[in-house]
Amino acid sequence: MTNQRRPLSFAKGHGTGNDFIILPDHEVGVDLSPGLVRVLCDRRRGLGGDGVLRVARTADLVSAGVLDRVPDGVSEEDWFMDYRNADGTTAEMCGNGVRVFAHWLVSSGTVTGDTVRVGTRAGLRGVRIDRCTGSAAEITVEMGVPEVTGVSTCTVSGQRFGGLGVDTGNPHLACVLPGLEPAALAELPVDRPFTLDPEFFPAGANVEILTELTDGRVHMRVHERGAGETLSCGTGTVAAAVAALADAGEITGEVTVTVPGGEITVVVREDGSTLTGPSLIVAEGTVDLNALPLSG
Amino acid sequence: MTNQRRPLSFAKGHGTGNDFIILPDHEVGVDLSPGLVRVLCDRRRGLGGDGVLRVARTADLVSAGVLDRVPDGVSEEDWFMDYRNADGTTAEMCGNGVRVFAHWLVSSGTVTGDTVRVGTRAGLRGVRIDRCTGSAAEITVEMGVPEVTGVSTCTVSGQRFGGLGVDTGNPHLACVLPGLEPAALAELPVDRPFTLDPEFFPAGANVEILTELTDGRVHMRVHERGAGETLSCGTGTVAAAVAALADAGEITGEVTVTVPGGEITVVVREDGSTLTGPSLIVAEGTVDLNALPLSG
Repeated sequence: MTNQRRPLSFAKGHGTGNDFIILPDHEVGVDLSPGLVRVLCDRRRGLGGDGVLRVARTADLVSAGVLDRVPDGVSEEDWFMDYRNADGTTAEMCGNGVRVFAHWLVSSGTVTGDTVRVGTRAGLRGVRIDRCTGSAAEITVEMGVPEVTGVSTCTVSGQRFGGLGVDTGNPHLACVLPGLEPAALAELPVDRPFTLDPEFFPAGANVEILTELTDGRVHMRVHERGAGETLSCGTGTVAAAVAALADAGEITGEVTVTVPGGEITVVVREDGSTLTGPSLIVAEGTVDLNALPLSG
Repeated sequence: MTNQRRPLSFAKGHGTGNDFIILPDHEVGVDLSPGLVRVLCDRRRGLGGDGVLRVARTADLVSAGVLDRVPDGVSEEDWFMDYRNADGTTAEMCGNGVRVFAHWLVSSGTVTGDTVRVGTRAGLRGVRIDRCTGSAAEITVEMGVPEVTGVSTCTVSGQRFGGLGVDTGNPHLACVLPGLEPAALAELPVDRPFTLDPEFFPAGANVEILTELTDGRVHMRVHERGAGETLSCGTGTVAAAVAALADAGEITGEVTVTVPGGEITVVVREDGSTLTGPSLIVAEGTVDLNALPLSG
């Protein structure tokens, strides 16, 4: 599969400041190489984004060899979020990405109704469109049962943090810092790469640093594997809610997570979890591959 | 003038990594408030850019009250680059912006031919399209006579630098550092705000830090007023060439300036100067004002 250098259609959207390039590619005709993803996500020479969301049906991604199988719970005809990080690597899931992805499916008229099934590498995600006025929406995503994988530590700039390993489809280390105030959280070096325990996290992990649970609310910053610090990370807010509840002696509950890009509400149940938050589709257009600094 | 919240057409382009949102607004119907510019230039919640280039005819910008008069040397029917920095302030001129602006005029079919007259707040700029293959072009801009305004100093992070004040339509302090190697240049805190002499630069200035002239070449980094460090600044490369030539005991000559975003060739003559470099138009589309975090 080689890209003919014709203009590609795209849309640009974000959920709480976590921003994505949506690439409708129903024919799976785009060779979405790591190099192409990197230049698309380049914020000055490309379109700019934390990641790329290719839109295609699951069966067509399997036929094209992008997926090696239909993931568990996903149907062949389900729309699949083929998620790529800004560095070109794939990610299993992205809670903000799923909101923007489902929002685009509805706002573009690709699907109708207020519930949407979205296939991801971490399995099926059920999505409910709570409110949609064209370019702006409020969306709830079923995030499955977060799995607590144990306790681990990380270090950054000589500081060491302990946290809870949580798998939400992708791996997280969510660190609740006792007594941490939001102002002090803003000063921490969350923008720098964290060193993790490679035995505990063989494929790396996102790291969340957060305050204790107070009046149903926590403040959080996140460093994402493959993207660096971002304004928000959907699966990270679920991991943070699980860790904050655990820190407060609870297993289930509702937590409002304030991230630098806005607010997300997470509900953790015995049998699953949901994430509710905004999505905005800011722009749409075409990108000219001839103008991108692609080698070859 | 209030913005009806309909989608606005835009294009996105860059010259040596200095990136711009091009807003064709021939009717001057857009209220390009500082707030709108800031959200358009927001790299996660908007389109992202170092600045906005509104495209309209000079007479129409005067009629709409955007310009208070037709600038010297500019004709009423000339296309005018209404340049706004990412922070919403206006700038007199931008050498990378003029290349991208003229490229868009030609690639969009708005003008034909290989020379283009561009009005700016610093006066008329003659532009030659050296090569244009749709989305990629090589373009030479007449930059006028750079005026040496004297010698001044700046400080950043406790370090003090001396340089040449150069006016290229907008004010610069170009600092040649004796013995500076490119590797050491990369380590300097050019990303932080510089403190300037407010009597010498009452409206502020861009600061260029550069190596000495060697084999017709210098390496430079730039901190732009209103935008912070950028990958390139066209007028800054002219100021840098003037300072590098002066440092080498010359008044005229050709200097290749390597900036983080690529290469620019500057020719300084007795009666003017030119800047030659690439321009790329990466994308075009529409942006939905309802999806931007505008207050009011």
